[in-house]
Amino acid sequence: MIDPALLSLSDIAANIRNRKISSVEATQGLLARIKDWQPLLNAFVRLDSEEALAAAREADTMLAKSGPMGPLHGVPLAHKDMYYVAGKPAGCGSKVREGWIAPATSTAIARLQDAGAFSIGALHMAEFAYGPTGHNAYLGPARNPWDPLHITGGSSSGSGAAVAARLTYAALGSDTGGSIRMPAHCCGVTGLKTTTGRVSRANAMPLSFTLDTVGPLARSAEDCALIAAAIAGPDPLDPVTDQSPIWSDDLAKRPANTLTIGVPTQFYVDGLDADVAAALDAAIKTFEKLGANIVSVELPDQTAVAAAALVVLAVEATSLHAPWLRTRAEDYTPQVRNRLENGLGYSAIEYLEALRWRGPALSAHLSAIGDVDIVLAPASRSAAPKITETDVGGGPNAEELVVAVMRFMRPVNYLGLPVLTVPAGWSAAGLPIGLQLIGRPFGDETCVALGRAFQQATDYHTRIPNLPRAQAA
Amino acid sequence: MIDPALLSLSDIAANIRNRKISSVEATQGLLARIKDWQPLLNAFVRLDSEEALAAAREADTMLAKSGPMGPLHGVPLAHKDMYYVAGKPAGCGSKVREGWIAPATSTAIARLQDAGAFSIGALHMAEFAYGPTGHNAYLGPARNPWDPLHITGGSSSGSGAAVAARLTYAALGSDTGGSIRMPAHCCGVTGLKTTTGRVSRANAMPLSFTLDTVGPLARSAEDCALIAAAIAGPDPLDPVTDQSPIWSDDLAKRPANTLTIGVPTQFYVDGLDADVAAALDAAIKTFEKLGANIVSVELPDQTAVAAAALVVLAVEATSLHAPWLRTRAEDYTPQVRNRLENGLGYSAIEYLEALRWRGPALSAHLSAIGDVDIVLAPASRSAAPKITETDVGGGPNAEELVVAVMRFMRPVNYLGLPVLTVPAGWSAAGLPIGLQLIGRPFGDETCVALGRAFQQATDYHTRIPNLPRAQAA
Repeated sequence: MIDPALLSLSDIAANIRNRKISSVEATQGLLARIKDWQPLLNAFVRLDSEEALAAAREADTMLAKSGPMGPLHGVPLAHKDMYYVAGKPAGCGSKVREGWIAPATSTAIARLQDAGAFSIGALHMAEFAYGPTGHNAYLGPARNPWDPLHITGGSSSGSGAAVAARLTYAALGSDTGGSIRMPAHCCGVTGLKTTTGRVSRANAMPLSFTLDTVGPLARSAEDCALIAAAIAGPDPLDPVTDQSPIWSDDLAKRPANTLTIGVPTQFYVDGLDADVAAALDAAIKTFEKLGANIVSVELPDQTAVAAAALVVLAVEATSLHAPWLRTRAEDYTPQVRNRLENGLGYSAIEYLEALRWRGPALSAHLSAIGDVDIVLAPASRSAAPKITETDVGGGPNAEELVVAVMRFMRPVNYLGLPVLTVPAGWSAAGLPIGLQLIGRPFGDETCVALGRAFQQATDYHTRIPNLPRAQAA
Repeated sequence: MIDPALLSLSDIAANIRNRKISSVEATQGLLARIKDWQPLLNAFVRLDSEEALAAAREADTMLAKSGPMGPLHGVPLAHKDMYYVAGKPAGCGSKVREGWIAPATSTAIARLQDAGAFSIGALHMAEFAYGPTGHNAYLGPARNPWDPLHITGGSSSGSGAAVAARLTYAALGSDTGGSIRMPAHCCGVTGLKTTTGRVSRANAMPLSFTLDTVGPLARSAEDCALIAAAIAGPDPLDPVTDQSPIWSDDLAKRPANTLTIGVPTQFYVDGLDADVAAALDAAIKTFEKLGANIVSVELPDQTAVAAAALVVLAVEATSLHAPWLRTRAEDYTPQVRNRLENGLGYSAIEYLEALRWRGPALSAHLSAIGDVDIVLAPASRSAAPKITETDVGGGPNAEELVVAVMRFMRPVNYLGLPVLTVPAGWSAAGLPIGLQLIGRPFGDETCVALGRAFQQATDYHTRIPNLPRAQAA
């Protein structure tokens, strides 16, 4: 029998529902892999093994008694350690949150619970989700399952690493400036940054109330859709979701030959490593074969869009942390503290101008893309760099390298657009390369539809990293 | 026969509806008074006599044919020159707006039109509503009908002067930091600053999107209610009105002996002129006689609340004007330009902290007042000062004096509370003294109810200023 941990989320959910594999078996399978991989990856910050096994037993009993309570009945998951569960800690990657107990459960987690899932633990993240690499001087870095010397990407570092190593079937991440897409790219998994306002952020740790989005990292587009279907939609606790449509499975299955794909002529094609450029070219060929209509698009100045995103992010993050910066500055790691202190320098007028340009910038984007359904872009100019190259101690070039590798992230956060990041190739060094399928506002399902078609035609997403021999021994 | 211009809004509306006075007669009555008073007061910036008379004739014809179209059928009104009417100029008191034509009609005006009213012209205001006195170096100052050497208060300067002199039955004003209440106080009329979110600001000139409120100045609480009933309620064009209840006439007629009135022990009683203190004491006695329950309340630090209001106002006003400040700074009057430039100095963090303190500050206010329905407070420590004392050329004490006379204005803007300002006495120099009836959130009707009871027991609101002999000649 195949290791149940290696099944996709869709498959394990179906197997549990059909009683071919028990929830206890699924949970044990993950726990066994976590035991092997965790010392290498540092992907989990907390493991709730006993509680998870008890939940699995309960799920198996309930299934026998009353059938499945939802599409994720009995499925063990693990999430970024910033989704609150009432009565539990949520460390948010920071010493500042030591000993803090969440007073309420996040809407995203509650909806996954309603669908039948439970949690086996909490995943590593950048301190307060404010960092793009997976570094965390408080927790130690998370490590890339494809090569532990390389970054996982961040801030949903543990989500990326754990999904890639098959330590969870899927994981919630969050994306304010690339925090789902960077780990998806670096770790070779599929990540869905949802449209701003599509998924409730209630009782999840805030970083920027304007830019924060919630979404899954999983092993495929189809699996991301399973999570998104459970969590998307309006929530009175997060007014920004007022207009959020419920998830449409039909839209998420639109065939590729009904879609128009725009390939940018600038910005997203600047300075690509050869292997990234090759992955992009190969993907275009795949989409052509699938019958999609491919056109060139000339996007408005994305550098200006990214700069506006940075102002909003820096100001809002610093504003949220200002009370602690005044009283507990020493509890932050130096990197994040510096980042937060930089936010003190913006004027209120700069901030409001950055906020109010969003509407015009989105209008300009929509004019530029015309009837394009998906803009196709690399996630980064290169595969995951090394941890040492990007650490604060990495010399004068470290910050510059970080800025360069995450350059393609911020524009969509400012515009509020949905993006599915899919694995689409391998670097010369054997690290994953991800592409962004950037949709229209509330076009999350269309991103998934194209990703699903791509994954039916390719097998990048199916490869599984091997535990290094030293670790396996 | 009594001059129809001297009737209240309620009375003229009833008389027109019952065909005892025609809309044309009502309009001619106002136009005759405007002709006499306008050279003295500078209350109107535009008079649409012919258009108004045509509208009046049409109203009379329609009334004869199909009966009244609404509670304000055929009533001529005039409003602060910042409520847009499609195809018309809206000068907003500034050279910057010369030649500008409004593309759409404000919701407040549209609703008054739906109720049957029409406009005879547009009223004087502080430049871009950014000034509390009635000064305007571009238009010249508006003048107080009780003594033209004294300020009208601002920014709804023309609204205050025109209602006081019986040149309109009522007028829309706006209140971001006192702009309805200061003119009501200075000119001896009744003004309703509505709860933030009660009345749509759509297509009215913005000053501060957080603090702006729309409301009427009129000759009585009852007349304010007539206008409020027409304009209150949700408007999709201004999302802040989402939760706005429609106006309740029943609530606006609650008897005073069902209400608890809180009299502050601090801040609002600091440094009052003897005549203001006497007016406050007399009002308390009147409310006691009316059977209201009078209690003392110890409010949280109102100075801090006012300071937070100032940050929000300064930042948002400057943000809205920043594009013009860069390109047309010379078209602003020096006073307003200075005020706007001051807004450049706030940091984004200060602004967000000021914004986010609103919830806690309101909670603290509500805790402090307990079950008090109305907090009773003077509008100002003194009656209207002289124009020369408060002008930019008024010497080093001018700014200090302005700050002192408007000290009791800003806290309610920050807290979003409704306030009815009612005339409640006369200074030694014969100028009006106003009191604030400060309600609970969305308790606008209760403010009106208590004001109505007060005005049934007193006659401060019925006195009419005399045209100085020199002018009448």
